Amino acid sequence: MTSLAYAAKRYLLSILLLLGVAASATAQNADQLPSWNDGKAKQSIVAFVERVTAEGAADFVPEAERVAVFDNDGTLWGEQPLYFQLLFALDRVKAMAPQHPEWKDKEPFASLLKGDIKTALAGGEPAIVDIVMTTHSGMTTDEFDQIVRDWVASAKHPKTGRLYTEMVYQPMLELLAYLRANGFKTFIVSGGGIDFMRPWTEKVYGIPPEQVVGSSGKTKFEMRDGTPVLMRLPEINFIDDKAGKPVGIHHHIGRRPIAAFGNSDGDLQMLQWTCSGPGPHFCLYVHHTDADREWAYDRDSSIGRLDKGLDEAGIMSWTIVDMKADWNKVFASSP
Amino acid sequence: MTSLAYAAKRYLLSILLLLGVAASATAQNADQLPSWNDGKAKQSIVAFVERVTAEGAADFVPEAERVAVFDNDGTLWGEQPLYFQLLFALDRVKAMAPQHPEWKDKEPFASLLKGDIKTALAGGEPAIVDIVMTTHSGMTTDEFDQIVRDWVASAKHPKTGRLYTEMVYQPMLELLAYLRANGFKTFIVSGGGIDFMRPWTEKVYGIPPEQVVGSSGKTKFEMRDGTPVLMRLPEINFIDDKAGKPVGIHHHIGRRPIAAFGNSDGDLQMLQWTCSGPGPHFCLYVHHTDADREWAYDRDSSIGRLDKGLDEAGIMSWTIVDMKADWNKVFASSP
Repeated sequence: MTSLAYAAKRYLLSILLLLGVAASATAQNADQLPSWNDGKAKQSIVAFVERVTAEGAADFVPEAERVAVFDNDGTLWGEQPLYFQLLFALDRVKAMAPQHPEWKDKEPFASLLKGDIKTALAGGEPAIVDIVMTTHSGMTTDEFDQIVRDWVASAKHPKTGRLYTEMVYQPMLELLAYLRANGFKTFIVSGGGIDFMRPWTEKVYGIPPEQVVGSSGKTKFEMRDGTPVLMRLPEINFIDDKAGKPVGIHHHIGRRPIAAFGNSDGDLQMLQWTCSGPGPHFCLYVHHTDADREWAYDRDSSIGRLDKGLDEAGIMSWTIVDMKADWNKVFASSP
Repeated sequence: MTSLAYAAKRYLLSILLLLGVAASATAQNADQLPSWNDGKAKQSIVAFVERVTAEGAADFVPEAERVAVFDNDGTLWGEQPLYFQLLFALDRVKAMAPQHPEWKDKEPFASLLKGDIKTALAGGEPAIVDIVMTTHSGMTTDEFDQIVRDWVASAKHPKTGRLYTEMVYQPMLELLAYLRANGFKTFIVSGGGIDFMRPWTEKVYGIPPEQVVGSSGKTKFEMRDGTPVLMRLPEINFIDDKAGKPVGIHHHIGRRPIAAFGNSDGDLQMLQWTCSGPGPHFCLYVHHTDADREWAYDRDSSIGRLDKGLDEAGIMSWTIVDMKADWNKVFASSP
């Protein structure tokens, strides 16, 4: 590059920076959260982001420390009538049944194959662990990745008839983009399986695999016909739920988030950990209050129960999103 | 922003982009690896980077997939006469001794406190695990972070008398920067402790905490006087070495790297995993051949043994860096 070209570039760059500043101020003023009604929830989000991004101000946070963590089930996409990953596991049982004639007489598989989900899941956690382990292990990580991709591209939700990835919340997609536009790094921290989410989170949420934290099974490196593979074992490695969420955050991210978003008691410790940090911080609960457009549930729900968290949010003055009142749109496209 | 200003910005942007292309071509031609002598090693690195970044070419790799993983001990900084983290642990034993009068009669601590490291470590792995667990647990994650920061800022290497962070390899710093300038995301994947590295890797290597993978102990979320803390427990969580490295990579990063850099048999499976991927890939071993400027060791060393890896590198035609011949500078500043 000649020095003339260099000088020209410097000059143009300075003009562009000035224009850029004007553009970003304009963009900040324009509404980047159009699916959020004006109200306390939206105002508290915008106020926090403006507070930590205002250079020179007391609460300014450098970009590297702008870590925001999001629960997935019930926070970024739906979770009713059952966690979507459990619906995936049930579909897998059906797909795998021809290779497992013994399942006809073995619970919880026998009931599942008769379509009696209630009886199948009556065994509680051990039954669920059995179903998940059976359907999530015994293959390589690459093979499982492909199985998830195929399912996500074709399986339909039993109530809405839509692809599961069409059941993500439009206001939360806007929130993710708004935070990233303001220098935040967005992470998922979910009780769901890390390898169940990674094949599609980049496309759907703009969150790459290395920014997904979740529950996991153990894997083992081995040689298969001279080729290295990672085999998925039927053993739990880590449960990223409740008190496990701060542990997962520390393990994967290695610094304390300044913003956390959840919807259930399973997220409570993540919010407590985030909102007890030394600097500015922000905690938000999505409260499912919209039985017409989505579902309404909280203290008594077996899926996504929000009970202790609702009390704590009141005490700590965390932001609570009333889905019915705060969101003018729930899903990206209408059914 | 007015539409006129917008049009002006678009116009200036297009000029700037043209200039930018010229600038980046110039930058690519300029030598970004000045501490590397011209030779096969340097040429193979540059050839690989140019191959995967050439848009439209068959081997082009999108930025999101340009994941490069680096071992730490012996690859990015020294590891002789003992792993630096072990020297940290020995310093901690001395610092903690006044609170532990019982150590006077308890091995391996008794020998350590007499300065007899050889006898202390004669117990092999159990003795080392005992020393590491004792010095790395029993405090919160925040407290441990501060202990590491203090040590790194003051402790000196027994042979060179330099800060440990001054014993990082200048050619590798240049390589990290060169890869990042070409759209790579750089990760550490080390057998060393994840929380021992994170407090300083951003400053020293430009690698943020969330891109550090390593061995870890278990942590537990709990309330201490009403404040949430993560306590470090004296239990191994994960050993990120040998066959553990691909497991750690999958767990933390969730996609297969396209470039891997190591120096010992502990890195072999990481290199095998990286270089058996479906697309273009690059594997490199740093061979310690310079007894004058650093250390010379390979097949018979108990620290950083490179034996099977050296054979495999030959068979697979991986790049081998001969430190003595390939690096015109080892450390960033002279002793």
